[in-house]
Amino acid sequence: MALTNQRSRAAAEQLRRDGQAALDWVARYLEHVPELPVLSPVKPGDILRALPQHAPQQSESFDAILKDLDSSILPGITHWQSPNYFAYFPANSSPASVAGDLLSSGFGVQGMLWATSPACTELEMRVLDWLVEMLALPEHFLSTRSGGGVIQDSASSANLCALLAGRERATQFGSNEDGCDQRLTAYTSAQAHSSIEKAIKVAGIGRKNLRIIEVDDQFRMKPSHLARAIEQDNRDGRIPCFVGATVGTTSTMSIDPLPEIGAICREHGIWLHVDAAMAGTAALCDELRYIHKGLEYADSYCFDCHKWMLTNFDCTCFYVRNRTALTNALTITPEYLRNTASTSGTVVDYRDWHIPLGRRFRALKLWCVIRSYGVEGLRAMVRRHVQLTNEFVSWLRSDSRFETIAPVSLNLVCFRLKGPDSANEALHQKLNASGRLFLSHTKLNGKFVLRFCIGQSYTDEEHVGAAWHEIQKHATEPAVAAG
Amino acid sequence: MALTNQRSRAAAEQLRRDGQAALDWVARYLEHVPELPVLSPVKPGDILRALPQHAPQQSESFDAILKDLDSSILPGITHWQSPNYFAYFPANSSPASVAGDLLSSGFGVQGMLWATSPACTELEMRVLDWLVEMLALPEHFLSTRSGGGVIQDSASSANLCALLAGRERATQFGSNEDGCDQRLTAYTSAQAHSSIEKAIKVAGIGRKNLRIIEVDDQFRMKPSHLARAIEQDNRDGRIPCFVGATVGTTSTMSIDPLPEIGAICREHGIWLHVDAAMAGTAALCDELRYIHKGLEYADSYCFDCHKWMLTNFDCTCFYVRNRTALTNALTITPEYLRNTASTSGTVVDYRDWHIPLGRRFRALKLWCVIRSYGVEGLRAMVRRHVQLTNEFVSWLRSDSRFETIAPVSLNLVCFRLKGPDSANEALHQKLNASGRLFLSHTKLNGKFVLRFCIGQSYTDEEHVGAAWHEIQKHATEPAVAAG
Repeated sequence: MALTNQRSRAAAEQLRRDGQAALDWVARYLEHVPELPVLSPVKPGDILRALPQHAPQQSESFDAILKDLDSSILPGITHWQSPNYFAYFPANSSPASVAGDLLSSGFGVQGMLWATSPACTELEMRVLDWLVEMLALPEHFLSTRSGGGVIQDSASSANLCALLAGRERATQFGSNEDGCDQRLTAYTSAQAHSSIEKAIKVAGIGRKNLRIIEVDDQFRMKPSHLARAIEQDNRDGRIPCFVGATVGTTSTMSIDPLPEIGAICREHGIWLHVDAAMAGTAALCDELRYIHKGLEYADSYCFDCHKWMLTNFDCTCFYVRNRTALTNALTITPEYLRNTASTSGTVVDYRDWHIPLGRRFRALKLWCVIRSYGVEGLRAMVRRHVQLTNEFVSWLRSDSRFETIAPVSLNLVCFRLKGPDSANEALHQKLNASGRLFLSHTKLNGKFVLRFCIGQSYTDEEHVGAAWHEIQKHATEPAVAAG
Repeated sequence: MALTNQRSRAAAEQLRRDGQAALDWVARYLEHVPELPVLSPVKPGDILRALPQHAPQQSESFDAILKDLDSSILPGITHWQSPNYFAYFPANSSPASVAGDLLSSGFGVQGMLWATSPACTELEMRVLDWLVEMLALPEHFLSTRSGGGVIQDSASSANLCALLAGRERATQFGSNEDGCDQRLTAYTSAQAHSSIEKAIKVAGIGRKNLRIIEVDDQFRMKPSHLARAIEQDNRDGRIPCFVGATVGTTSTMSIDPLPEIGAICREHGIWLHVDAAMAGTAALCDELRYIHKGLEYADSYCFDCHKWMLTNFDCTCFYVRNRTALTNALTITPEYLRNTASTSGTVVDYRDWHIPLGRRFRALKLWCVIRSYGVEGLRAMVRRHVQLTNEFVSWLRSDSRFETIAPVSLNLVCFRLKGPDSANEALHQKLNASGRLFLSHTKLNGKFVLRFCIGQSYTDEEHVGAAWHEIQKHATEPAVAAG
């Protein structure tokens, strides 16, 4: 009995037509994005007002949608794929990744269990094992050893899962069935990402039980302060359960001293998590692997391929030394999810490695990226960005109006006009309003500081040069004119 | 000074070429997927063994990748987009969604803040407001009122966020800075999704503080038992903070009695969350809106457009009655995320509405779906699936070998061969091994039961008919032969 499968065939046809239109739109977008104002100039509510109040009752054509994309949506886009984007950390991408993501959308598999698409799980295991070798991470993070890697949506979520695993281990797997033990304490530096504090809140550990450890003059966690805080908590009958260290902090890309921190964690039996969301990718290059010195102490680790490894959001790679510690913290198995493969214990069910049950086939885009560029191609990108950063710094240092704040690390420069915050705030505002570049800010030692991060896939010397030209131009105007 | 933008132009060209190849691949996949065995027949490790142990050092062509997709990946896919997929709940999709998702991948914006792409936030607000009207949800879920909606990755994550908001409100916003108050208690039915229990664990409330409320003979939470449990906890000095009710439970699609549960929650001031992950979409149709009777009591609500609204994973719509309750539970604002728009309080920053900081532009695919099909088109899909389900039930009831277990609700049928579990387990295994359909199972009243859910986008009467034919065929073989 042959089936006609009319709907499947009609869908294929519609995808050929509408998908083609979308693909052309994106290709044109990539061509023209360098000319668009990087930071969207719209005001709050502008986009909302351009959109109909009610959903259409009847079908509309994809052409009509694309027309509105140009007129109503595009003006409200801040262009993360512009080569003139230097703000926050990048979310870089590549054609290989977009094509790989299209395959993932097309498959539409939901890989919650090994059985619900074995390839979704096993390709992820293999590609994450590749990355252990590519970044020279400790071998216990391999799925063939005690650990393993998993793709999560963000470093925020990975940091939360690391904390949950640490919490679970400290309370001996399950003794906190009565609720989070209020004696638990956790530790991170004053320069760590806000997601650590958010995780502490989510996990019910309580913000008062998060010890914020001082940083040194290079914005690195002070191991001596960490040791002192842990010892004090031990004396007070607390249960230290988690240390969150950072390789490449958000404000300055500072690198916490993992060897010293790791030794302290090991001595006290505390879970050490290392968040290398932005910086991790640098370890593709031999000469930059110093960033991971001491990583062998870590119980868990994450970095974002969606920041600096040409893979479009979302793609955080999260590793654990011991997968049981993680899954113990997250497993719940109702009858409707039981199946032979899971029960046999011979497969990985990634639903037990993160908060969501459902999961998209994200390994596909990562696989496409690694194969399309090869390890050498990815290394070349990192080296180019680091090189451009060094050039930018040399220009900056040749202009006596500016000062760099914090050591320049990898691809991030923190700088400011010598003088009051107001002049720097005005410069920041003028630069972003120019539309020619977008950069963000932070505060260091109480001072307003500009952050310039080079990591967008399509950024070349000409864009860094044009940005520097713009910075110099606006810096020459008296700051008061900006008021 | 005109920039050459060579890399952007080269990327556009590469995307035209590789994106086209990926698009053709997906279109062919959709054409042929009805012929493929629905449940992947591979064994644990088969796919891993087919993949290289090491990442390539040099660039490979996209053609080479697609070739391996066919040979190494495709055999390990369980085909969620097959019209012969009847397992779990569907993760249905559409060409409009895939094309919309391609636009999202192409933009590559990261919408953590309003300022990092105003359109990413405001299109999401508008489309989620559309859905309030489309499903006739309570108006306080509108962003123009006290509440609002947000897209999350999964109902699991939405359920966690609802719990966190309830926990925060019960402890008067911040009084749990010392850690999760161990007096807190939460309530859900024995048929609720496992993600509620997972959320309880994550949030540090403790599994012993989750009260599992009995269900009636139709698998619905018993309000009298809920009331009794809450009263007992109040007498014991506990703090009831959260009730998780379900519209469309995973095992049987049963619908908890929201009017009675809601009245109890209101009386005791407890956060009521309603998880309608699968069933919610049915409310597109007037005649099916009974499922949401009593929803006006809910403090939060979620349903999955990636299950039954033609939107590819991930796209959970999560609503709150009072957005402040949610953001209080999740906000942390470091200096590097501060900006004029956020500080002004005139914009929504969706990073404070969920666990991750970063976020993809998921509203685009949803916008494309709603516009491409129109409300009428989406309604027609729901009606078709419900109608097909009714037909399947009539066939089942005309065959005296079978019995239905639990009332048939919307698009899910729970049935079994009259007789021992072993016969049903054998039937289940043979059906899935045939490759001609995929269905999953559950246990109800201690018995092994088959679940047949009709929600795949391309499923037509011919596929349901063929599935029924297959079921009848294998049911005629003596069960013992399967041993």
